[in-house]
Amino acid sequence: MSSSLHPERFFDSNPEVRSLAGKIYQTTRDLPLISPHGHVDPWLFAKNQSFPDPTELFLIPDHYLYRMLYSQGIKLEALGVPTRSGAGVEKDHRKIWQIFADHYYLFAGTPSQVWLNHEFAVVFGIEEKLTSASALSIYDRILEKLQTPDYLPRALFDRFNIEVLTTTDGAADTLEPHQIIRQSGWKGRVIPCFRPDAVINLHSESWRSEIEKLGNVCGFEITSFSHYIQALEKRRQFFKEQGAVSTDQGIFSPRAQELSAREADAIFQRALQGTSTEADTAEFTAHMVMEMARMSIEDGLVMQLHPGSFRNHNQVVFDKFGADKGCDIPVATEYTHNLRPLLNKYGNDPRLTLVLFTLDESVYSRELAPLAGHYPAVRLGASWWFHDSMEGMRRYRRMVTETAGFYNTVGFTDDTRAFPSIPARHDLSRRMDADFLADLTARHIIDFDEALKLGYELAYGLAKKTYKL
Amino acid sequence: MSSSLHPERFFDSNPEVRSLAGKIYQTTRDLPLISPHGHVDPWLFAKNQSFPDPTELFLIPDHYLYRMLYSQGIKLEALGVPTRSGAGVEKDHRKIWQIFADHYYLFAGTPSQVWLNHEFAVVFGIEEKLTSASALSIYDRILEKLQTPDYLPRALFDRFNIEVLTTTDGAADTLEPHQIIRQSGWKGRVIPCFRPDAVINLHSESWRSEIEKLGNVCGFEITSFSHYIQALEKRRQFFKEQGAVSTDQGIFSPRAQELSAREADAIFQRALQGTSTEADTAEFTAHMVMEMARMSIEDGLVMQLHPGSFRNHNQVVFDKFGADKGCDIPVATEYTHNLRPLLNKYGNDPRLTLVLFTLDESVYSRELAPLAGHYPAVRLGASWWFHDSMEGMRRYRRMVTETAGFYNTVGFTDDTRAFPSIPARHDLSRRMDADFLADLTARHIIDFDEALKLGYELAYGLAKKTYKL
Amino acid sequence: MSSSLHPERFFDSNPEVRSLAGKIYQTTRDLPLISPHGHVDPWLFAKNQSFPDPTELFLIPDHYLYRMLYSQGIKLEALGVPTRSGAGVEKDHRKIWQIFADHYYLFAGTPSQVWLNHEFAVVFGIEEKLTSASALSIYDRILEKLQTPDYLPRALFDRFNIEVLTTTDGAADTLEPHQIIRQSGWKGRVIPCFRPDAVINLHSESWRSEIEKLGNVCGFEITSFSHYIQALEKRRQFFKEQGAVSTDQGIFSPRAQELSAREADAIFQRALQGTSTEADTAEFTAHMVMEMARMSIEDGLVMQLHPGSFRNHNQVVFDKFGADKGCDIPVATEYTHNLRPLLNKYGNDPRLTLVLFTLDESVYSRELAPLAGHYPAVRLGASWWFHDSMEGMRRYRRMVTETAGFYNTVGFTDDTRAFPSIPARHDLSRRMDADFLADLTARHIIDFDEALKLGYELAYGLAKKTYKL
Repeated sequence: MSSSLHPERFFDSNPEVRSLAGKIYQTTRDLPLISPHGHVDPWLFAKNQSFPDPTELFLIPDHYLYRMLYSQGIKLEALGVPTRSGAGVEKDHRKIWQIFADHYYLFAGTPSQVWLNHEFAVVFGIEEKLTSASALSIYDRILEKLQTPDYLPRALFDRFNIEVLTTTDGAADTLEPHQIIRQSGWKGRVIPCFRPDAVINLHSESWRSEIEKLGNVCGFEITSFSHYIQALEKRRQFFKEQGAVSTDQGIFSPRAQELSAREADAIFQRALQGTSTEADTAEFTAHMVMEMARMSIEDGLVMQLHPGSFRNHNQVVFDKFGADKGCDIPVATEYTHNLRPLLNKYGNDPRLTLVLFTLDESVYSRELAPLAGHYPAVRLGASWWFHDSMEGMRRYRRMVTETAGFYNTVGFTDDTRAFPSIPARHDLSRRMDADFLADLTARHIIDFDEALKLGYELAYGLAKKTYKL
Repeated sequence: MSSSLHPERFFDSNPEVRSLAGKIYQTTRDLPLISPHGHVDPWLFAKNQSFPDPTELFLIPDHYLYRMLYSQGIKLEALGVPTRSGAGVEKDHRKIWQIFADHYYLFAGTPSQVWLNHEFAVVFGIEEKLTSASALSIYDRILEKLQTPDYLPRALFDRFNIEVLTTTDGAADTLEPHQIIRQSGWKGRVIPCFRPDAVINLHSESWRSEIEKLGNVCGFEITSFSHYIQALEKRRQFFKEQGAVSTDQGIFSPRAQELSAREADAIFQRALQGTSTEADTAEFTAHMVMEMARMSIEDGLVMQLHPGSFRNHNQVVFDKFGADKGCDIPVATEYTHNLRPLLNKYGNDPRLTLVLFTLDESVYSRELAPLAGHYPAVRLGASWWFHDSMEGMRRYRRMVTETAGFYNTVGFTDDTRAFPSIPARHDLSRRMDADFLADLTARHIIDFDEALKLGYELAYGLAKKTYKL
Repeated sequence: MSSSLHPERFFDSNPEVRSLAGKIYQTTRDLPLISPHGHVDPWLFAKNQSFPDPTELFLIPDHYLYRMLYSQGIKLEALGVPTRSGAGVEKDHRKIWQIFADHYYLFAGTPSQVWLNHEFAVVFGIEEKLTSASALSIYDRILEKLQTPDYLPRALFDRFNIEVLTTTDGAADTLEPHQIIRQSGWKGRVIPCFRPDAVINLHSESWRSEIEKLGNVCGFEITSFSHYIQALEKRRQFFKEQGAVSTDQGIFSPRAQELSAREADAIFQRALQGTSTEADTAEFTAHMVMEMARMSIEDGLVMQLHPGSFRNHNQVVFDKFGADKGCDIPVATEYTHNLRPLLNKYGNDPRLTLVLFTLDESVYSRELAPLAGHYPAVRLGASWWFHDSMEGMRRYRRMVTETAGFYNTVGFTDDTRAFPSIPARHDLSRRMDADFLADLTARHIIDFDEALKLGYELAYGLAKKTYKL
């Protein structure tokens, strides 16, 4: 533990709540970490090579750092973000680190700063604040550690006490790194998650090439919707064999609506011929949400939906730098009407577990908690993305718990690309949950024994149970 | 008072606020209960028979208990919920109670558990926690009490210090139980509320049979829209004579829009012939919202709107078990545009009191508080249904008060079917309002004298005044 | 400072937070006031005449006082609000004041009461509470002071320590009062803001006469869209010469969508001929949002958008009393889709500063914070109008900070017509920001030095920088 991080940080400053929160947190702090959904690159653990430097470790995989810097006028080129053309990008990682440190004050009050301070202190033993003055000395100290065996990816994984880490993988992915990991003798459990977006989103430029890849990896040509479904079922089976317990879909709207086999195939044929419309894309996606639920009932994979993000909102940045550059902006999202066909067909089936996420907090109390508090299949995912934060977690618990209870939620999900931030994120979540339970205890809504039991469930038990780990 | 319930429960744990809240609550705790809107069965008091057993008392009338159990995989049949076919349902109430107790932990942090703990302790003197082990002994102790005269419905009504209890009754209802009650010599004030949903919702299967019933009770056949309006006016008059002070409409959308007499009759004729469309239903409902406002101006009944619930969202449960099985899910609801025609025609009329409720908390600060803070006719109903809860009440006050003030709100409404939960619900509301006022006092926004005056209004005065009781 | 106002008012009652908040507030309390957007009449300072009486000073310019009174059944005529016909209005300002005082309790818990208590105590040295009994004595004491030189508008401006006060002025306005002020030798900085709503909103009855006025003030007839654009550019230039640093648009929806020059002119011609449609109005406004952004890039004026208010919702009041009578009701507002064309064309340009406001709090965390946390041009305006309040400010900071950070917000904006309320409003904002920062400090999310620095920025620095003052 670090001396620069206050042991009671993030807890309510009321002494009674703070003290109770501390006691609850003591019992959850050291539980193993379950990361049931995220975007860490599995090659990290397959190759187990040193992280090259602090810029590569902290900045490059975290577009939520450079989105803030960009919002304040710093060019992405200056942060080393590669352009599509390859031109004009800063290559000096020490320079980039200095810019980051010069603007670290912009992150005051954000979870990014909370996580980074944790990483510096706990993972690297650096108690000093990151400032313009300290930037390069901190860089050098981190760089030195990164070159030692203790800071290799697998060593960190073990030190972080990660029980399971789930990656996110395309339908046509061969899962080669996962196979390498398992054959390596290393005991770290890194498992894939089946995310078929690239072969479902007809509107994407790469859809046809993805279908071709899917056909190649399945060993047959995909010329009809029924082939396509066969291919997906085959890949899900393969993912299961490689340890997968879940699927995920990142969709614009959580609309589910069944097409007839004929309609589905007609759209599929148009898409193959490059003549499908935007309406086709929406219809097809809605049908595939239904199909994914059916398949989950058949093969037991937990189904996750992450809707409501307008991807690549900034066309200028997309054209120059490509996707995933911090330009995804949420939109209002509707679940009650949209999911009804799915829930009416599959929501009462005990074999289905459907984990719903949202970026639209107005639906927590209006739609999601009521749905999770009724349908046996529905569980509520953690407060997601922008809401994976202190206030975001607090709003989530306050708006969800009274209607859905604790047991229709699924514990914490870090959903990160930034591997070294995983313990920081879980620590924040465990602290905020301890704080929430402490407040309920101090107000005599639950008793302390119950708070301890719930603390365990929120930190560990529910994730393990929901994802069948 | 009970030793298992902490006297300062639900108050903020800050000592200054907690102490002030306690002082305010002392002055409101024993005020009579006004229940201006709810769903308790009036036959309870007409017949005044013993409640058969704890399962019948607590579980059967409260679909918000078995919705949570259902969400965690417990079959409704196992909970004794009658199927339409009558088949396969658990009849052993002790067994059902045991299942309930085994899963009582699911309700941690929910208002259901808060209310039940209050009922066990305060109404039945049971200090022990409900667990698997204590289930049947608690069952037996409650059962024993239920067979004593002190636990007959009227005795409980008197003990609960209920000043007025409003039931909810269909337009064609004869109000027989209400008449029996008044003729019985018992002084309990149980009054009806006029809820014409069954004769307004053209889309309902039973609409034509309800119209027939309405005609029968009025003594004339309803063959035109003008007969229909006459019938409704006649029934409102009858309800008033039986003590009613209010009407209520449970509608999907709070849209108000006047039709011409000719248009209204054309839709009515199509509905009689069974050829009306979904659009007809929406138009007709919107027109009837206007008509109900007009009638309220003429006869003085307070008008209530409860919009925004997608009823019977789960078709599987509806087909097997029927309505009101905890499967109603809220939707986004719009008031600013939808109510404008009504407010422009009637909203400035001092004779109209229109009480608006919502399940969509995003409209509290955006639409409802601004409307209530301007239109003389508009008042804001209490935080409703899923939001009749600790956090729900707190959000309501925080989002509404600064724009609408306290005096455009109407005090607490329990809206329950579960008779023995009424004092628990009012107690929670009084505690949360005391807590809110204590916080304002501690922050020097109001002074303590004002807090006491407002405490009285929120607990008692505003409901009495709004509903003309 | 006043003895009737508690020095630690509005702070969290937790002693640790309260004490920290007090320390932060000490450092911001006396910073000069920057009022970058509001509706104070510049003639106040051009003429510098005594305010006639308390009713004229407090009530007449503040339709948020009489909207609350009206909502509780008090006639606007009785409050001296002039009817269009001029008939039937109370002229006795002492009588009106008495009515106001009789109903002052209605404002309990609202910011109006908080501001007024501050004004009475700090500006007029009146410690007594406003009640029915004290009404006229308070009236007389204020009246007496108003007749002294210390209470002339310019003297108050200086005493209030206002560094800049921005007014809101139509495109065709000659800015005569601003010129008089600057020529007077008085050093108070009162600057105009360019608000072209009256010449953009084709739907308004007065649009054509406003276009004529615009032509007159420009010295050429406006017969085409290109003339119109020329005229606006010329007026913006004139406003800049008169000290303006910003523009503002009060629009129904923040939709931005470019038309071709031909389409724009076709709509413009229809509007001149009085044949434009509602769709034309929407298209034209969306195009003008784009045009205003283009012009801001060219001339450097900061662009502000205030969308989402349904103006004159109450037709009855509008017909009788005209606009701005407290009958504006918010609606749901969408930014992610609507602003995309503007942000894609101009949002990455460092020359543009676009300040976004909202009345729809559900978009804070869903749309506005993500947009401000990414696009270099976007900044988030303060919590606006109904949300310029204690809870409103708190919700704003809690929902915005973690995603957008502090530096993508623009400090406090009072947006008031009520000149003497300006210091009260800034004081409340500085207290609530101090409280928010104190809470972050107590929870060890930021340290105390950072809190002081941020306190300065939120109270003063960010407004000065954003508006280039």
